[in-house]
Amino acid sequence: SSANIDLDRSSRCGYPEVIYCEGKTSTALVEIFTLLLESKQRCLGTRISEEQAETVLKQFPQAIYNQVARTIRIPEKDAAFDEELTKGKITVLTAGTSDRPVAEEAMETLIWMGYEPDLIVDVGVAGPHRLIEQLPRIQNVSAIIVAAGMEGALPSVVGGWVSCPVIAVPTSVGYGASLGGLTALLGMLNSCAANVTVVNINAGFKAGFIAGLIADQQRSSSES
Amino acid sequence: SSANIDLDRSSRCGYPEVIYCEGKTSTALVEIFTLLLESKQRCLGTRISEEQAETVLKQFPQAIYNQVARTIRIPEKDAAFDEELTKGKITVLTAGTSDRPVAEEAMETLIWMGYEPDLIVDVGVAGPHRLIEQLPRIQNVSAIIVAAGMEGALPSVVGGWVSCPVIAVPTSVGYGASLGGLTALLGMLNSCAANVTVVNINAGFKAGFIAGLIADQQRSSSES
Amino acid sequence: SSANIDLDRSSRCGYPEVIYCEGKTSTALVEIFTLLLESKQRCLGTRISEEQAETVLKQFPQAIYNQVARTIRIPEKDAAFDEELTKGKITVLTAGTSDRPVAEEAMETLIWMGYEPDLIVDVGVAGPHRLIEQLPRIQNVSAIIVAAGMEGALPSVVGGWVSCPVIAVPTSVGYGASLGGLTALLGMLNSCAANVTVVNINAGFKAGFIAGLIADQQRSSSES
Amino acid sequence: SSANIDLDRSSRCGYPEVIYCEGKTSTALVEIFTLLLESKQRCLGTRISEEQAETVLKQFPQAIYNQVARTIRIPEKDAAFDEELTKGKITVLTAGTSDRPVAEEAMETLIWMGYEPDLIVDVGVAGPHRLIEQLPRIQNVSAIIVAAGMEGALPSVVGGWVSCPVIAVPTSVGYGASLGGLTALLGMLNSCAANVTVVNINAGFKAGFIAGLIADQQRSSSES
Amino acid sequence: SSANIDLDRSSRCGYPEVIYCEGKTSTALVEIFTLLLESKQRCLGTRISEEQAETVLKQFPQAIYNQVARTIRIPEKDAAFDEELTKGKITVLTAGTSDRPVAEEAMETLIWMGYEPDLIVDVGVAGPHRLIEQLPRIQNVSAIIVAAGMEGALPSVVGGWVSCPVIAVPTSVGYGASLGGLTALLGMLNSCAANVTVVNINAGFKAGFIAGLIADQQRSSSES
Amino acid sequence: SSANIDLDRSSRCGYPEVIYCEGKTSTALVEIFTLLLESKQRCLGTRISEEQAETVLKQFPQAIYNQVARTIRIPEKDAAFDEELTKGKITVLTAGTSDRPVAEEAMETLIWMGYEPDLIVDVGVAGPHRLIEQLPRIQNVSAIIVAAGMEGALPSVVGGWVSCPVIAVPTSVGYGASLGGLTALLGMLNSCAANVTVVNINAGFKAGFIAGLIADQQRSSSES
Amino acid sequence: SSANIDLDRSSRCGYPEVIYCEGKTSTALVEIFTLLLESKQRCLGTRISEEQAETVLKQFPQAIYNQVARTIRIPEKDAAFDEELTKGKITVLTAGTSDRPVAEEAMETLIWMGYEPDLIVDVGVAGPHRLIEQLPRIQNVSAIIVAAGMEGALPSVVGGWVSCPVIAVPTSVGYGASLGGLTALLGMLNSCAANVTVVNINAGFKAGFIAGLIADQQRSSSES
Amino acid sequence: SSANIDLDRSSRCGYPEVIYCEGKTSTALVEIFTLLLESKQRCLGTRISEEQAETVLKQFPQAIYNQVARTIRIPEKDAAFDEELTKGKITVLTAGTSDRPVAEEAMETLIWMGYEPDLIVDVGVAGPHRLIEQLPRIQNVSAIIVAAGMEGALPSVVGGWVSCPVIAVPTSVGYGASLGGLTALLGMLNSCAANVTVVNINAGFKAGFIAGLIADQQRSSSES
Ligand SMILES: Nc1ncnc2c1ncn2[C@@H]1O[C@H](COP(=O)(O)O)[C@@H](O)[C@H]1O
Ligand SMILES: Nc1ncnc2c1ncn2[C@@H]1O[C@H](COP(=O)(O)O)[C@@H](O)[C@H]1O
Ligand SMILES: Nc1ncnc2c1ncn2[C@@H]1O[C@H](COP(=O)(O)O)[C@@H](O)[C@H]1O
Ligand SMILES: Nc1ncnc2c1ncn2[C@@H]1O[C@H](COP(=O)(O)O)[C@@H](O)[C@H]1O
Ligand SMILES: [Mg+2]
Ligand SMILES: [Mg+2]
Ligand SMILES: [Mg+2]
Ligand SMILES: [Mg+2]
Ligand SMILES: [Mg+2]
Ligand SMILES: [Mg+2]
Ligand SMILES: [Mg+2]
Ligand SMILES: [Mg+2]
Repeated sequence: SSANIDLDRSSRCGYPEVIYCEGKTSTALVEIFTLLLESKQRCLGTRISEEQAETVLKQFPQAIYNQVARTIRIPEKDAAFDEELTKGKITVLTAGTSDRPVAEEAMETLIWMGYEPDLIVDVGVAGPHRLIEQLPRIQNVSAIIVAAGMEGALPSVVGGWVSCPVIAVPTSVGYGASLGGLTALLGMLNSCAANVTVVNINAGFKAGFIAGLIADQQRSSSES
Repeated sequence: SSANIDLDRSSRCGYPEVIYCEGKTSTALVEIFTLLLESKQRCLGTRISEEQAETVLKQFPQAIYNQVARTIRIPEKDAAFDEELTKGKITVLTAGTSDRPVAEEAMETLIWMGYEPDLIVDVGVAGPHRLIEQLPRIQNVSAIIVAAGMEGALPSVVGGWVSCPVIAVPTSVGYGASLGGLTALLGMLNSCAANVTVVNINAGFKAGFIAGLIADQQRSSSES
Repeated sequence: SSANIDLDRSSRCGYPEVIYCEGKTSTALVEIFTLLLESKQRCLGTRISEEQAETVLKQFPQAIYNQVARTIRIPEKDAAFDEELTKGKITVLTAGTSDRPVAEEAMETLIWMGYEPDLIVDVGVAGPHRLIEQLPRIQNVSAIIVAAGMEGALPSVVGGWVSCPVIAVPTSVGYGASLGGLTALLGMLNSCAANVTVVNINAGFKAGFIAGLIADQQRSSSES
Repeated sequence: SSANIDLDRSSRCGYPEVIYCEGKTSTALVEIFTLLLESKQRCLGTRISEEQAETVLKQFPQAIYNQVARTIRIPEKDAAFDEELTKGKITVLTAGTSDRPVAEEAMETLIWMGYEPDLIVDVGVAGPHRLIEQLPRIQNVSAIIVAAGMEGALPSVVGGWVSCPVIAVPTSVGYGASLGGLTALLGMLNSCAANVTVVNINAGFKAGFIAGLIADQQRSSSES
Repeated sequence: SSANIDLDRSSRCGYPEVIYCEGKTSTALVEIFTLLLESKQRCLGTRISEEQAETVLKQFPQAIYNQVARTIRIPEKDAAFDEELTKGKITVLTAGTSDRPVAEEAMETLIWMGYEPDLIVDVGVAGPHRLIEQLPRIQNVSAIIVAAGMEGALPSVVGGWVSCPVIAVPTSVGYGASLGGLTALLGMLNSCAANVTVVNINAGFKAGFIAGLIADQQRSSSES
Repeated sequence: SSANIDLDRSSRCGYPEVIYCEGKTSTALVEIFTLLLESKQRCLGTRISEEQAETVLKQFPQAIYNQVARTIRIPEKDAAFDEELTKGKITVLTAGTSDRPVAEEAMETLIWMGYEPDLIVDVGVAGPHRLIEQLPRIQNVSAIIVAAGMEGALPSVVGGWVSCPVIAVPTSVGYGASLGGLTALLGMLNSCAANVTVVNINAGFKAGFIAGLIADQQRSSSES
Repeated sequence: SSANIDLDRSSRCGYPEVIYCEGKTSTALVEIFTLLLESKQRCLGTRISEEQAETVLKQFPQAIYNQVARTIRIPEKDAAFDEELTKGKITVLTAGTSDRPVAEEAMETLIWMGYEPDLIVDVGVAGPHRLIEQLPRIQNVSAIIVAAGMEGALPSVVGGWVSCPVIAVPTSVGYGASLGGLTALLGMLNSCAANVTVVNINAGFKAGFIAGLIADQQRSSSES
Repeated sequence: SSANIDLDRSSRCGYPEVIYCEGKTSTALVEIFTLLLESKQRCLGTRISEEQAETVLKQFPQAIYNQVARTIRIPEKDAAFDEELTKGKITVLTAGTSDRPVAEEAMETLIWMGYEPDLIVDVGVAGPHRLIEQLPRIQNVSAIIVAAGMEGALPSVVGGWVSCPVIAVPTSVGYGASLGGLTALLGMLNSCAANVTVVNINAGFKAGFIAGLIADQQRSSSES
């Protein structure tokens, strides 16, 4: 087989390997998901195309496909996927409406990790009152994800209001000197707010994963 | 002579040629300023070094040297430089305390143009209440200059609160991926606020000059 | 709803939120425009595709679609859009004929703000007499917009002839080392003319908006 | 005063404003620290020069200066700074010995936040057994900081072995195409390990702050 | 003719000129291959499109086309191409499954040079045990090729385990700040492992060719 | 010896090898010049430091050192260097006064080639009448060199007025986004004037050499 | 009309304005060519698409369209275009076969200027004897154009053999770190051969035009 | 101790860990070398400063310091360092005289590995006959190192003449658009010669190490 799935990742890293679908054949995807499910791992595929999703859905009708997020989730064979999700720990914000797909990828990742994130869209800095109105929804959580394109200023502003880590995801929204998201990325890395950390351009999956791991600190400690 | 001063600029562009002192000998500077004063032009020198300033001050004791701004101003021979300045038209803001020299260069340029700008420092986005407290000082002016380094987010936030043009000046304050001010520059160019326009990194002179020209629209129209 | 329109922007910033259409569904656009019109705001949409424009026009037949500019304007319900436009305040120049779409976007923005700008195309520096012939049309205005690609030299040359702010818009016209407009952008930021300020690549909307705000300084003062 | 310290930050963000010393006069620093201490905030200064530190130490002999980290800490007036530190939550790793100063800045930040981090240096990937030997020290913590220059590969490798967030700090260690840390930064942003998040080049302070906030999730929940 | 094939290359450089097919007409390719075969050179074409391959295959049915690698090989007229290949000298590794095409191009090049390389796919650093399991297959060869995208960390890790040259090939696999392979390229150039050398992005052909030349050192010396 | 001077260059390329002095010891320079003079070649050294020049002058008192240009010229042993120079063929222009050193390097190169160039300084585009006044001095020559920093617009404007090649030399004059001359370089490469060709940043030597070779076309043809 | 053709260019610059067809409607092209022909100027259009060429050819059947070069030439109404071309003055070289279109654009430009250039293709440095064989064809001309992609080394090598200016045209041929021609461009600007000057990436037209102007120096002087 | 030397490297990678001296204290260096010598490893230190070298030499008078190369070598306690070196396997070339230090670093590395490389300096492409004269010294070796700055064309030309791997080392020699060696690096990565592989800018050590490993293929096979 051309793939060499890391079936042991769950035991080392807490969660199974997530499948990056870009550049894989649909057949390969079905093979990989079968393998993961057989070893009782819950599956997440990212950057899946409509065409790939169709083939996977045919084989696994229980799969949940999110077209905007370009993700697919498959519950493990013997487990109900609709187990109770942990609420109130994580908020996902977007600066504009076009940053939505990146936010959705983060959301799907978090649901796969067992969280139900709160979503607030279109609260960019040009309309400053919009964020102020939402402060109660961001001031008592474990982690906040902020997706923003163009100049990527929102994470700094959010960072100034909260005491938890802010995971900034630059998006490729914008034109000209936005350089496909590089401008937002550089801006976020230079945030004057000390609580802002950054992931790759459009990396909703990574932002979600980090946010989930942060919330895990509390979930696991409150569990023990 | 090695310089070819544009003595006609004042009649075409409203203000005399400003002297960029970097890379000129002190002797050349004295020559140039003498020429300008002889043709009854008020002088402004930018990016002047301490050493250059000393020589110029020896020759023109009436000159006003601002070490932080690295500027020198000399009133024309027959005119009092302390003519009445126009107040209340322009506000200069800085995000941090290190952006001060750039703000000072803008201020000196404006004074040379006959304006008395208002200055507000250190109102960066990580402490959001600081700007809100100053809103009255920025909501009734003709133009606002915002100097900011690092991610350069302040102009966007200011832009969201006002109805006049915001001239954003990126500064080279920051480190690492701030790339000597390029990150702030790119961010400002991609501002989601529609009223933000941008000048070169550390170009306090240009920001001041543009702001002055904008305020001139009203000054001249109210004069007529 | 997925959008969170800033209906209060007009009172803070003088003009309503302008809708960036790229990446929004046609349905979302209709929703947004309905909302704006209901709150008696005049609508401007930028970067609209032909397909989006068609849907919007079906719903709002009074809308004015400019295919070259990729803009759509909709007069507010109770107001005639053809109110008298303020003339003689703003000139829009292009260096070449291919910079036209960017100039058109600036023009549409200005019309939406109540101005009737003057347009002069194809006066690039390689044929220097062409600009000289037009000097009377650029020397008595409040603001000049200059759209240029390739090396972006025209704003500097224009700046040398006038006493009002020059808003330079780099365009992506060119090839090879023009780097999609970055070369023109960098050139304009380094203009040796002190009255040149810069907006993002192809940002005709922003150039128009800033020019309008500058002209407003005089319009409002002459009104009062 | 030229600074406008955000005395309210502690209540919004959990910790007081940290002072970026670069570009501030020693007098300004003493002023700022006095202000912070008067409002009962514990002080941290970063990027402090030897000369600045000397002046500050003269005024506040209780201050703790770390020359390698370029930091200074001052306990609040009425509190003992040597309160008990929380152990066992955070590990700081470096790829090489030259990444040490960045690691030290992170350590000092964490001590200021009340944590006693574990430090492991010089476990870069070219000697792979070195990391393996230290696995027990990185597999039961809340957060791991990894400082690495050159190609910045260590965070990915660490990420493959742990279930907590890995905060990657690129350093400017290297030459030629290391581009002052940009290469390490880009590499870390593209890490194939899903649990890696990134801060600015040489930003030991930020890495420490984020790690502290993550550990806070557990500390506060176990406190309640 | 528009091409000027270097028929003498084999005598100077050990192997005939390889044909870069991109941007050549199918007719030109047939002409070139005919010429090479006539002068008794074995042919290799790289970056061949499906359409080009079809035409070439029609003319030379004995040609071996690899669609994934985008290569075509044609044995010289009088020689059996299936001469015995030298085994056990070279291993080709990939970090992920999407790096496969680049690895295939290297493999095809090596087969054309008379080597039978060993292939190991999908042993990226996020699943560290996968490489460890394969150590015996990489520790007794003359040269190792490592194809990796994203942060390109695998060559450094491999370099830490072996005593032969490691030829690193950055691939364009990744998104956002992977910059089409530039990030992996820069990382590999800065590898902290001393035995890593680098070729162009996606340059499987070059990696294969260099590896073959290295193995030739031993093959030829053991032959003599 | 550590240098391997190309004594044959004069016969192949028309002029002897020019010595790039940067990074060579003064002893090496004396050795090299001795060698050149012995083979009856006239010497030109570029980028020479004051210290290097001193040593060379001690050995060859007939040498002509230009401190601003950072060049040294030595007439061949048996020839008078003050042979008659060809006039009226080449004009050198600068945009600002700080571009002078680059212009001087071009001038020295041309004198070494036997030309007496005409020099016009400080005719940048912000004062457009200055160039117009000089048109007669640029419209009847074989080649024009234009040195300019900042946005580098002058070559395009000059190109619009003349029928000979314009050799544009970007200089590193400027700050911020001038990127050490890259902005001027990119601008010149994208000149909308068809007669503009470009050399490296600050490469006065190359500009002079090319201009001389162009003028040679006419000198040699008129000689024959 | 949307274009403002510079009909006076011929008198100032020796040749009429050349039409850059990209981004112009076919109707606009016909209009422009009609205008030029009416004022008795010979037309050259560059970067013309097949579709645009078709329309133009319908209107001007005497036009000469070169599909590879993407150019169109139209003789002036009353003149025979097949006037005698000047031979033996200019040679055009390419490094590879894929650089041909750029060479063709240069050739067409030269024919339009009245020259018949000599063409030598595919003499790149990897097969060094190929250039040596052609030395007689490059050592007695007025100017040499060298089109090369990838590392762009050929102009330096050619420069080492000749005494006339070498106009280097970087092409976008290559992949990966060739960066669309930027690598070749940068290499050529840094050529260690003093007689190499550079134009924009793929700028065959500019290379041809400069070469023609250089040859003009001799043609005009031999004419007078 | 702050360093964690990889004493096992020799057994895994064939040679001991080499010490990168930049950023280490002289005390640390002495400690590290003592440790290496105690475990019977031969020491090599690179990028050592004069000051560091002095301290090390005081402690280990048998050390061999090369100031140009910035390296230090120390024979292991019980072994004679002057064991017989393997000759005739490796040639080191430089394009100019300023590339010498990088070549020296490669040479020192090779001597430490037991090789006596052949050195040829200043055979850059602008004087093409110089390389041709040296062909016999480069056509029968196992590996060739080519150090070149500016446009970095020499490796491609060398590659066209030989049948062994060419290891290209870009140097930071040059100015302006040489971008500190990036131009040479990019050029070498895009070499049209198939046998060219590349290391980091100024990385003489790496080039030497790879060349040594390649020659080892033959040395070890001829030994067995
Ligand atoms: N080493 C550091 N790196 C990045 N940001 C810092 C650092 N130290 C302090 N800061 C932040 O920088 C801001 C201070 O900016 P300023 O007003 O210029 O002093 C504070 O709000 C801190 O959160
Ligand atoms: N959207 C994503 N962005 C970044 N990394 C991902 C993404 N989805 C999966 N991955 C990671 O990419 C790796 C898979 O690479 P591959 O072997 O090419 O399939 C897995 O180890 C995942 O941790
Ligand atoms: N600080 C500054 N930044 C940018 N341009 C400036 C500055 N000061 C003066 N200038 C402009 O630079 C031009 C002078 O260039 P130069 O001929 O080199 O002295 C003048 O026309 C001024 O408009
Ligand atoms: N100022 C200069 N800029 C660029 N190239 C130069 C310069 N001066 C001399 N050269 C060229 O640099 C080459 C010498 O390089 P090197 O062998 O390092 O001394 C000569 O062949 C000259 O053609
Ligand atoms: Mg919005
Ligand atoms: Mg502050
Ligand atoms: Mg035109
Ligand atoms: Mg180490
Ligand atoms: Mg995988
Ligand atoms: Mg000047
Ligand atoms: Mg070829
Ligand atoms: Mg030399």
